[in-house]
Amino acid sequence: MKYYIGVDLGGTNVRVARVSEQGQIVKVIKEATEIEQGVEHVLDKIIRMIEEIGELDTISGIGMGVPGPVDTDNGVMMLATNLPGFEGYPMAETIRKHFNIPVFADNDVNVACLAESFHGAGKGYPLCYYVTISTGIGGAFSFNNRLVSGKNGYAGEIANIIIDRNREKVNYLNVGAVENEASGTAITRKGKAVFGDHIKHAGMVFDMAREGDEKALKIVDDMAYDLAQMFSSIAHVVDPHIFVVGGGCMKSKDVFWDKMIQYYKPMVHIGMQDVIFAEAMLDEPGLVGAAMLPMSFGK
Amino acid sequence: MKYYIGVDLGGTNVRVARVSEQGQIVKVIKEATEIEQGVEHVLDKIIRMIEEIGELDTISGIGMGVPGPVDTDNGVMMLATNLPGFEGYPMAETIRKHFNIPVFADNDVNVACLAESFHGAGKGYPLCYYVTISTGIGGAFSFNNRLVSGKNGYAGEIANIIIDRNREKVNYLNVGAVENEASGTAITRKGKAVFGDHIKHAGMVFDMAREGDEKALKIVDDMAYDLAQMFSSIAHVVDPHIFVVGGGCMKSKDVFWDKMIQYYKPMVHIGMQDVIFAEAMLDEPGLVGAAMLPMSFGK
Repeated sequence: MKYYIGVDLGGTNVRVARVSEQGQIVKVIKEATEIEQGVEHVLDKIIRMIEEIGELDTISGIGMGVPGPVDTDNGVMMLATNLPGFEGYPMAETIRKHFNIPVFADNDVNVACLAESFHGAGKGYPLCYYVTISTGIGGAFSFNNRLVSGKNGYAGEIANIIIDRNREKVNYLNVGAVENEASGTAITRKGKAVFGDHIKHAGMVFDMAREGDEKALKIVDDMAYDLAQMFSSIAHVVDPHIFVVGGGCMKSKDVFWDKMIQYYKPMVHIGMQDVIFAEAMLDEPGLVGAAMLPMSFGK
Repeated sequence: MKYYIGVDLGGTNVRVARVSEQGQIVKVIKEATEIEQGVEHVLDKIIRMIEEIGELDTISGIGMGVPGPVDTDNGVMMLATNLPGFEGYPMAETIRKHFNIPVFADNDVNVACLAESFHGAGKGYPLCYYVTISTGIGGAFSFNNRLVSGKNGYAGEIANIIIDRNREKVNYLNVGAVENEASGTAITRKGKAVFGDHIKHAGMVFDMAREGDEKALKIVDDMAYDLAQMFSSIAHVVDPHIFVVGGGCMKSKDVFWDKMIQYYKPMVHIGMQDVIFAEAMLDEPGLVGAAMLPMSFGK
């Protein structure tokens, strides 16, 4: 049995785990990131945490999941809004030099895709397209258990796919970008517009839809349609074997999931209608996926 | 030097070529398909043509490009509108049994993508997305010189991507599907609607645009915008290193190409704006690409 180290580095906390090649988390340590104390402090901390995990002679590689785009060839963050100082810093190289074993890094959405592809809902499917519907909308895809990041790591930047060009400009994204129409943040915005400022999060709109409120149902129905159109665009580009869907909004899948699939089917060719829509199933996709990064490169 | 046989099978003609691993066509034979005489007649003909090409002891594999979706695992056409009788027929197996060397088959758009990826405009780029803008719109993509066909071979069915849901229903494709708005057929339809039934093909509209006709320029401008939106959807899904664009409409690239790229840039993230748009460059992508099929599988 092979073992890997997975590092899940966030702006608030960092977790380090020993993970088996089967995706089982054997041991995990969590600490505060303390990014305000600088990059080197955080990397020293990660190195110490890895040493604390121990049994390093049985480790085949280290993988890191980080919140932002990564130059995966060099293990460097290209943008690090929540980890000031990490942008451009040779983070993977620093850790590799210390332990002298392979270290890989990728963004947290890609890593979650890899986890689901190796050990979750996407297991056994060659082309797995992972979509997270949360405050934002993100995506990633893997082919034969290897992430396909594209030219500049923007594969899966599906938030910016235009689902209806006749909408209003909301922010820097395209007019009618799906994230501005069907994410948790979008549902909150639409809820506020209809019901007033007491709407604090999408869950309140989903609750009203559950209670049969017509206006809330309309918001949810539009969300289901807009998501369906996004999925149809993705399907026509890559024809995945499976869509694995995660993210906070999936807690309310009861209100939009079936409608979304119903809208999806007529938007694709008959031969594509049997694509599988599955809910992400891993408890710890961030840790497991990070640990699987070395394995995806054959380490 | 390795050599392959490429078979370009169409409804009217069939061509068989000896092609070097460098993509050079050494010898080619062309005959009428005579599909009305049946599948076995056509396959016997192809076998005889391959024998005529000769030097078979130097051939590492045979590849076939056919007009329609293919079950690539089994080398069987799944739909064969222009080759009645071929649907479900074990075409690759029939030829493999005769020559006892590996035989692969794929549809003509995929095969053209492979040709451009190995030896054309896409050479050297890991993720190459090929788009053909002709009477219809088709697509295909290769990753590390291997075609990614997706679950049911529908990867690249970009004709059906919705670029504006607020259009009119034209045919079985989605309302606002890009093929119904920006293909050669679409331009002809729009030209007829504006100028009358004497418009016989898209080239006539492109000519009027060249001469500065305002209405023709509007049609072309809309085409450029609609194509740009399609390309932006593809880019957000896979972030290719290069878009290779072929097809009959490229003869009129002077009227829409620059506009299209201009519209494309603000529709994607800044980091994606440097994607390369290149014109397909091979004279015989069908023959060369078919011949490269065995090579793409390491034969």
